[in-house]
Amino acid sequence: MTTFSFLDDYSEGAHPDILHALTESNYIQQAAYGEDSYSAEATARIKAHLGNTFDGAIHYVASGTMANIVSIASCLRPHEAVIAVSSGHIVVREAGAIEATGHKLIVVPPVDGKLTPANIEAALASNAHFPHMAKPRLIYLSDATEIGTVYTLDELRKISALAKQRGLILFLDGARLGAALASSKSDVTLADIASLVDIFWIGGTKAGALLGEAIVVCNPALTEDFAFHVKQRGGMLAKGRLLGIQFQELFGVKNLFLENAKHANAMAAKLASGIVSSGYALDAQTATNQVFPILPDSVISALEQLFAFYVWRKSDNEHSVIRLVTSWATQEHQVDAFLARLAQL
Amino acid sequence: MTTFSFLDDYSEGAHPDILHALTESNYIQQAAYGEDSYSAEATARIKAHLGNTFDGAIHYVASGTMANIVSIASCLRPHEAVIAVSSGHIVVREAGAIEATGHKLIVVPPVDGKLTPANIEAALASNAHFPHMAKPRLIYLSDATEIGTVYTLDELRKISALAKQRGLILFLDGARLGAALASSKSDVTLADIASLVDIFWIGGTKAGALLGEAIVVCNPALTEDFAFHVKQRGGMLAKGRLLGIQFQELFGVKNLFLENAKHANAMAAKLASGIVSSGYALDAQTATNQVFPILPDSVISALEQLFAFYVWRKSDNEHSVIRLVTSWATQEHQVDAFLARLAQL
Amino acid sequence: MTTFSFLDDYSEGAHPDILHALTESNYIQQAAYGEDSYSAEATARIKAHLGNTFDGAIHYVASGTMANIVSIASCLRPHEAVIAVSSGHIVVREAGAIEATGHKLIVVPPVDGKLTPANIEAALASNAHFPHMAKPRLIYLSDATEIGTVYTLDELRKISALAKQRGLILFLDGARLGAALASSKSDVTLADIASLVDIFWIGGTKAGALLGEAIVVCNPALTEDFAFHVKQRGGMLAKGRLLGIQFQELFGVKNLFLENAKHANAMAAKLASGIVSSGYALDAQTATNQVFPILPDSVISALEQLFAFYVWRKSDNEHSVIRLVTSWATQEHQVDAFLARLAQL
Amino acid sequence: MTTFSFLDDYSEGAHPDILHALTESNYIQQAAYGEDSYSAEATARIKAHLGNTFDGAIHYVASGTMANIVSIASCLRPHEAVIAVSSGHIVVREAGAIEATGHKLIVVPPVDGKLTPANIEAALASNAHFPHMAKPRLIYLSDATEIGTVYTLDELRKISALAKQRGLILFLDGARLGAALASSKSDVTLADIASLVDIFWIGGTKAGALLGEAIVVCNPALTEDFAFHVKQRGGMLAKGRLLGIQFQELFGVKNLFLENAKHANAMAAKLASGIVSSGYALDAQTATNQVFPILPDSVISALEQLFAFYVWRKSDNEHSVIRLVTSWATQEHQVDAFLARLAQL
Repeated sequence: MTTFSFLDDYSEGAHPDILHALTESNYIQQAAYGEDSYSAEATARIKAHLGNTFDGAIHYVASGTMANIVSIASCLRPHEAVIAVSSGHIVVREAGAIEATGHKLIVVPPVDGKLTPANIEAALASNAHFPHMAKPRLIYLSDATEIGTVYTLDELRKISALAKQRGLILFLDGARLGAALASSKSDVTLADIASLVDIFWIGGTKAGALLGEAIVVCNPALTEDFAFHVKQRGGMLAKGRLLGIQFQELFGVKNLFLENAKHANAMAAKLASGIVSSGYALDAQTATNQVFPILPDSVISALEQLFAFYVWRKSDNEHSVIRLVTSWATQEHQVDAFLARLAQL
Repeated sequence: MTTFSFLDDYSEGAHPDILHALTESNYIQQAAYGEDSYSAEATARIKAHLGNTFDGAIHYVASGTMANIVSIASCLRPHEAVIAVSSGHIVVREAGAIEATGHKLIVVPPVDGKLTPANIEAALASNAHFPHMAKPRLIYLSDATEIGTVYTLDELRKISALAKQRGLILFLDGARLGAALASSKSDVTLADIASLVDIFWIGGTKAGALLGEAIVVCNPALTEDFAFHVKQRGGMLAKGRLLGIQFQELFGVKNLFLENAKHANAMAAKLASGIVSSGYALDAQTATNQVFPILPDSVISALEQLFAFYVWRKSDNEHSVIRLVTSWATQEHQVDAFLARLAQL
Repeated sequence: MTTFSFLDDYSEGAHPDILHALTESNYIQQAAYGEDSYSAEATARIKAHLGNTFDGAIHYVASGTMANIVSIASCLRPHEAVIAVSSGHIVVREAGAIEATGHKLIVVPPVDGKLTPANIEAALASNAHFPHMAKPRLIYLSDATEIGTVYTLDELRKISALAKQRGLILFLDGARLGAALASSKSDVTLADIASLVDIFWIGGTKAGALLGEAIVVCNPALTEDFAFHVKQRGGMLAKGRLLGIQFQELFGVKNLFLENAKHANAMAAKLASGIVSSGYALDAQTATNQVFPILPDSVISALEQLFAFYVWRKSDNEHSVIRLVTSWATQEHQVDAFLARLAQL
Repeated sequence: MTTFSFLDDYSEGAHPDILHALTESNYIQQAAYGEDSYSAEATARIKAHLGNTFDGAIHYVASGTMANIVSIASCLRPHEAVIAVSSGHIVVREAGAIEATGHKLIVVPPVDGKLTPANIEAALASNAHFPHMAKPRLIYLSDATEIGTVYTLDELRKISALAKQRGLILFLDGARLGAALASSKSDVTLADIASLVDIFWIGGTKAGALLGEAIVVCNPALTEDFAFHVKQRGGMLAKGRLLGIQFQELFGVKNLFLENAKHANAMAAKLASGIVSSGYALDAQTATNQVFPILPDSVISALEQLFAFYVWRKSDNEHSVIRLVTSWATQEHQVDAFLARLAQL
């Protein structure tokens, strides 16, 4: 029986401040469907991070796949396609959700998990035989990426400039945006993102909320009728207060959104450092809250007695890469226990 | 400024037992995406109400529109259509969500808010010019209906028999199923429904949960690959535990699901009775948690100083129908206050 | 065995000039996918009828349902809905084709087969609870209507003005536009239509072509990327020349498009007049190429020995309404034969 | 100005027998929407090639993209995906038509333009994380492939066996099926295909028809309600006779379907052989009606003075691959002229 899970960053409930706020506010009657005062306050608090020039809108939905569906389908015409890396969440982890809204995904190879101006240009060049090919129209980024890497400000600026030049909508999936912003490898702020992309979302589920993602529509041209799409796709909660209260807490005076991510990243860094100290290599540098050590299979088996994690892939005949994920809820003593056990083995 | 809202049954948070359970379980690590032990327990508890012959599956989603999207789109081929009354929630309150999955709605007039075998037969007869017409394939019922009426067991049996005879899938939207089952006008149980329909859902949001609806797939033929649809439409929560814990509480020893609904219905009955005692008529009999009194416009204006409610429609030049909705959270002293104020006016 | 069919206006092949032109041009190599010189010439010829201010585009597709799919789906966002009469072709004769592109149909009762400003206003008024209701955005008209009536210029102007005032797209299905323009009840020209609607199509199939409809995009804002939609929906023919040649002939010096329709209407008028002379009533005035006489069932049975037609509906216990349709190919001696037989009975 | 085009196999109209048959039958009244006697006869003639065990259905549509849309969308549930090679027509030449029906394309690298059991297995292995990934359910093949190669009987048998074993639907796009069956590299018959795949279509457009593709539904389980899909997608012609007459001619006593393809292939083989005789290499072996010579850019420029063809891609700094396509209508003296000019250069 395992004592602790490093499987993912959504194994626990919510940050206690969120549960406290839910309990405190429970009997206060509120308007439904996102018209409650908590959602208004959450929006005000998030906007305070988005820079003075922000002139968009914020909407809250229950899941990351919903955030992607609504964001993408609301701004594309039927013949328009999405450019994404082959490891992108919408490509391989959402059961065809974007195609189910009618849109083609144009897939390019990732570079360190990321899109680059060069692979965007390549996608445009090989998808130009119009009208026989779907028209590339939206760029899908994840930050942090699906393998835990992050975009630098310079990288985002170059992609944003290319998008503007080529008439493309730039969209950023921020399921793990907190981990990205809190990364020592990142020099990006929420205000930077708001100024560079057309639409993005801030992940609450992996940042200490029970559920919930905040879609930030930066480009004013994309705000028209946005709520219809949330409603039509089934993403609008009758008790929208549930989402509002949570984002109000995440973006309150304690800045839980960033602090929770910093804790997760610190726990990952400690794991990474300890693993290297024990003489093992990492398959990739640790930028956020995911660690990919390469371990002997015998060691892995022994660790699995006490800890849960995914064996990611075989590395060679006797070694495999495993994935360890930390979160706002990861207890440091469990990290210590993992490293102690590893040192023993 | 109003002191109390009778606008709807989702103005408050959740039943305190639910918040308590969320808090108690918060740090227990669980598998994601509905594979947690709470969801398993909730399913076991719900199944205990479904009869011995139940051989289906239960899935949890975040919203009622999502429950309708997933339930309907998972079991129809592209050319198949839905029969519904013109007042049906999917017809007039979900922003075209079902059509967005590609399916036509065939709309018939309601009888007391309900579908009848006769209007189903009429829909079949006028939609039979194949293949030029979409093929009627699924019957959509709401119980309680959008105007608060309920189906009797006899009515459900007749519709179910017709569905079987004509090869139609019978689907029941249970956004307010608790209120229906708890109604003095209803002789129906969950087991009855499970034996008569192919698929239905149990509304949690309006029964005291923060959010969440339990889709019960009764017909084993419809269970195959169901989870894919939940995922693809954006209805699967990473922290599925949130839904599992709530339904575990709603169907626990206290039977909150039914008790909450009984309270709501009792408050509505008290309102209805008091209003009649004050000499005013009702626009419709009160079967569940909605009351539709006909009041002088001057009285309505005076009541609006203290209470929030919807003015439903003009009745004549000097009167209007208003809608009062009660819930698990309606406080009896507010009902009393409303009736006292009405008596004063 | 019947000798002649009045079932519909597409029982024969094509006007002989079209077959001649196909044969003459058969070995001339042409660019594919509508880039051929015949399509260019057809477009020039049609534009000559559209008025000096026309600044749109013309595209050719193979079927009427395709013309409706492409026209509607190319200009709507997912949450936008179509207003149509309940007898509209897209509502009851296209197997849910529009819903299959994701859009709701908001259905209103027809007045003499037609939409009116009043029923459009009613649709807007009852579909305004946003964002819970799909947003009415496009008005669908058929001219001639499904029951053979036509719009007057005044009627079209009023609907057009309303559409502009309320921000709605005005779309006209012209499957039988030739019959409408050739009707003695109509004072409308192609140029009128082009100036009043945003998009419409000119039916070739029922006007003497083998197949083919010309979509005329009048509003320049709707022309962008139109060809993608034709391609994506499967409406683009490799040998686009086939469509170009036919419309070149229909809009050539003989003006076959109008002349074919005039013949059809004249044959219908002769039928109508002869039927009335024989002492029978018509269920509706004959404005185009459809006649709806009310006949004793015994007479109908006798006529069915020699002629094919649809029995439309029972009129009373001993009478039914039948539908007679004429076309460019209807032979006058068959009309005479029908009337002679009727007079005998 | 060029004298002859080798751009594609749809630059001319139709085989003269087809035009003759259209003219001969022009005034014979027929039932609409595919219920005409010509379509029935065409179906009987095609079935004569499909083997005694064939127990399916045949439907006619206007275009290849339509044939793919209808075939694929009619047999998949929303969460099911298609496996195709990256060069597949549905992947890169149909403007996202399949995704527009809601389905994901899982793309694998082609081997000589073809799918192999190994790359199908690879697609299954990398798309198995259910329900987070769309479920692979249908295999899309083109024969001849987009680069003119053909499947052998052994290859088709192995893919068919794999499909059955893994519960996959096997679908074959036969836009150039005539060229494939007529190829000296192919040992496959129509009856073989009908016995090995679940559904396929026979391309008429590139085989000498004005337009038209015959969808052959081999698996009886897939025939139910098929016509609805044809209608709903806009693929059903009012004058279905147009398609019936053409396929009746293509599969008549002259067997034009095969003879037209043999002529095209022979012309391609003559081109290929002559080009090699002139000392130039081919980029790929010529199996059907496409030839891919590698020529010096200066030679290409000179040839372009007289002939039209696509320059496919750069081969090196001074050479390019061009594509020459032949058809039923290619005149041998033009092939000779091309080779003579090449020999001169």
